[in-house]
Amino acid sequence: MNGNSDTDYVRLRLRLYFGDDLMLGPGKADLLDLIASHGSIAAAGREMKMSYKRAWMLVEAMNKAFRAPLVDSTRGGIQGGGARLTETGEQVLAHYRRLEQQVAVSGASEIKAIRDLLNVTSKTE
Amino acid sequence: MNGNSDTDYVRLRLRLYFGDDLMLGPGKADLLDLIASHGSIAAAGREMKMSYKRAWMLVEAMNKAFRAPLVDSTRGGIQGGGARLTETGEQVLAHYRRLEQQVAVSGASEIKAIRDLLNVTSKTE
Repeated sequence: MNGNSDTDYVRLRLRLYFGDDLMLGPGKADLLDLIASHGSIAAAGREMKMSYKRAWMLVEAMNKAFRAPLVDSTRGGIQGGGARLTETGEQVLAHYRRLEQQVAVSGASEIKAIRDLLNVTSKTE
Repeated sequence: MNGNSDTDYVRLRLRLYFGDDLMLGPGKADLLDLIASHGSIAAAGREMKMSYKRAWMLVEAMNKAFRAPLVDSTRGGIQGGGARLTETGEQVLAHYRRLEQQVAVSGASEIKAIRDLLNVTSKTE
């Protein structure tokens, strides 16, 4: 948001892979957050400018990858369907967010060192 | 390599973004490592099953993003050209590798917690 803040120069993103497959990264974590806040996979996908189909596919992939589904959803119906995070979904998301925080803290000095080597003119773009 | 080791279940990969652009991630870091060991952008790219053009583009992008080029190269000539990491290149790569190590250590418990929630049958695939 603030283009002049130091932390905007370099952002660290974490992706967890399970074998060769992306299991959890910033996109899926944000999708889970938005499903929790909107109570709808479609609305969460829209906010991420993602097709309904893609949002569903990501949810399906996560639901399969874990011991229990991360998202519980009801399609259609009079109420138009709805979705919420399961207990496992809340746990996985919380672990991922804590991982992001811990990594940002522990990695701060190396990230700063890399940032300090960046081209200064590029920083103002 | 060892499909039964715990650490193979979940691998953490770090990507550093500068604004919206990927600045440094596992692919570029490996490319830098291979350029250092092979002394050639083409050979490094081949080992990563990457076209010569793509390897060059990644190097150019890194060279522009930092204060000083990360890779010093001579195209063609009698010797067939060659490439090596500059001091800045070695520094950036070293910071990235240390960042990976620190993050793996500091994130271990959260990563384990996520791994413990994975579908057991998927783990054996």
